[in-house]
Amino acid sequence: MTATLSIDLGDRRYPIHIGAGLLTQAALYQPHLTGRRVLIVTNETVGPLYLEALRQTLAGFTAVETLILPDGERFKNLETWSRIFDHLLEHRFDRQSALVALGGGVIGDITGFASACYQRGIAFVQVPTTLLAQVDSSVGGKTGVNHPRGKNMIGAFYQPKVVVADTQTLDTLPDRELSAGLAEVIKYGLIRDRPFFEWLESYMDSLRARDPVALAEAIERSCRNKAAVVEADEQEAGQRALLNFGHTFGHAIETGMGYGVWLHGEAVGAGMCLAMDMSRRLGCLSADQATRGRALIERAGLSGNPPAGLSPQQFLSLMAVDKKVQAGQIRLVLLDGIGQARVTPTFDPAVLHATLSAHCHDQKAR
Amino acid sequence: MTATLSIDLGDRRYPIHIGAGLLTQAALYQPHLTGRRVLIVTNETVGPLYLEALRQTLAGFTAVETLILPDGERFKNLETWSRIFDHLLEHRFDRQSALVALGGGVIGDITGFASACYQRGIAFVQVPTTLLAQVDSSVGGKTGVNHPRGKNMIGAFYQPKVVVADTQTLDTLPDRELSAGLAEVIKYGLIRDRPFFEWLESYMDSLRARDPVALAEAIERSCRNKAAVVEADEQEAGQRALLNFGHTFGHAIETGMGYGVWLHGEAVGAGMCLAMDMSRRLGCLSADQATRGRALIERAGLSGNPPAGLSPQQFLSLMAVDKKVQAGQIRLVLLDGIGQARVTPTFDPAVLHATLSAHCHDQKAR
Repeated sequence: MTATLSIDLGDRRYPIHIGAGLLTQAALYQPHLTGRRVLIVTNETVGPLYLEALRQTLAGFTAVETLILPDGERFKNLETWSRIFDHLLEHRFDRQSALVALGGGVIGDITGFASACYQRGIAFVQVPTTLLAQVDSSVGGKTGVNHPRGKNMIGAFYQPKVVVADTQTLDTLPDRELSAGLAEVIKYGLIRDRPFFEWLESYMDSLRARDPVALAEAIERSCRNKAAVVEADEQEAGQRALLNFGHTFGHAIETGMGYGVWLHGEAVGAGMCLAMDMSRRLGCLSADQATRGRALIERAGLSGNPPAGLSPQQFLSLMAVDKKVQAGQIRLVLLDGIGQARVTPTFDPAVLHATLSAHCHDQKAR
Repeated sequence: MTATLSIDLGDRRYPIHIGAGLLTQAALYQPHLTGRRVLIVTNETVGPLYLEALRQTLAGFTAVETLILPDGERFKNLETWSRIFDHLLEHRFDRQSALVALGGGVIGDITGFASACYQRGIAFVQVPTTLLAQVDSSVGGKTGVNHPRGKNMIGAFYQPKVVVADTQTLDTLPDRELSAGLAEVIKYGLIRDRPFFEWLESYMDSLRARDPVALAEAIERSCRNKAAVVEADEQEAGQRALLNFGHTFGHAIETGMGYGVWLHGEAVGAGMCLAMDMSRRLGCLSADQATRGRALIERAGLSGNPPAGLSPQQFLSLMAVDKKVQAGQIRLVLLDGIGQARVTPTFDPAVLHATLSAHCHDQKAR
């Protein structure tokens, strides 16, 4: 089964193809890449698995070169990013060229940001190979790199021409990465799609067992949710911030622990549990629903607690550089119920502190 | 006298204020910066002259900090650019902040590109203090930095909220920089405004003597020309490429000699002479008009010849990484007459070679 969704952003409308075996279907790429010289950017882990198949697929109709970057969140920085320009210029790629990102969220974010900036913008294609990238980072046009002081602080909104999500590539995904991707899947249920949350409660075991039909449905329903939010608010003037549920806490974990020590999805999983507990303490989420949310996150193979090494003070300090901060005020995404999120410009800081104090230094964590 | 032009780009419409003493008129900035924390970015040359006056002007209504970068085209690179992010993050600037570029083209281009990428885009104001920046680089939203292999190869289209061009700041401009700015002024006459070219023939001596009325008129007429082109073609799909008249040759000079050895305007001046001579050799421009064009460029205090150090082969190799290259083919802007330019996708390469051979290794150069 193949599904094709569309992100409608006026003249930057683009399709997302989801299905098994799509990686090598030339017809999906051809309309977007014909006549363009292509550089496929991948990493040392994904390259040996899928690079040759993709290269041959594209080489059937255009000129293709490849660039292999090191793997991991700690390489998602300006230095790795600039290596793409070195390659493009050394090999004289012109403005009619295209970059193809083959890999997970890090490769997609770096490559997309390079596409946005090379000669002030060239064509870009996403071929996500992790669950996290297929359900979240490859869709919606957020690109960028980390700064030592904050996640994704340098970047651009830049939409791809097409997203090709081959669900078969998940066969080679480590269990830890599968769980990390499920965090973002659960997020859509929690913030805006209660029926999807309940479906996930029923199918979590199938998903962890990599049932291909269940995975394809989870990916498609996630992308539908993401597409609806991005179409309504491409540049995060309003509701797109809801997609950051758990992320203000999560980014603090990622930055505080050192990029890559916790995977992004792992940090988001624990971050969502913190955000739900805070919502409960503020009286907007029932204890029962907070428990249900946390239980599903733990069933996905994720920790509901932050790492033991971060103190509440470190957390607060790291959260203060979040992109949602306005006039020195941290803004958080909280839940009013499963399927109902909102951004809070104001809240009692004592409640945030109490939430962090209750969960940090918890030696059961991981 | 103050003139206000407007660049009409839909929801990114913005004003350009031109006049004497505008730098310290708070009312010009206030609508765009109120409520935003501001970082003024300038360099070691302009800082001592105008930074304190601008800082005090803005401090009247918002919080202001300053960052001083080294001066010169050779610092227009990713490394200098990333220092802006270090400062912004160290001092916890949020997404509602603004960057103000106080200086010439290098400061404007670096600061604009940082504005485009910090947290995926923050507000940006241009306060150009060189003739070149006032007539060209501060208007139109081209931002970016150089790569060792090519000028402006990494960047973004990103429009400022307002441009404040204080013509009094030209009082402190070195003669060499004044001449460099005049190259871009003459360019508008050559490519699309023959009456302006003829006006420049009459007023060149006044301009070099820094007659304030003549300078203000030259700046305003230049900005009107630039605005018309940018409004019609913001992202250079077509006619905006005409603004690159002389630039393919010029960028080769800048990159080949080492950034900053020739000023950008100096390289463009010689580049326009090469482009006119090539147009003459191709039979589209009369010898008389080519001579008139070159004479005005030389009266501006610029060399009509490229530097002695670059061979025709080096030139060709450097020109092949120009942003207008398509499918390996160099595209040049040529003249059909004074005031009439076009982009040529094809031309006899022997004529390009003959043009370069006639002018390179010319020991009269400079």
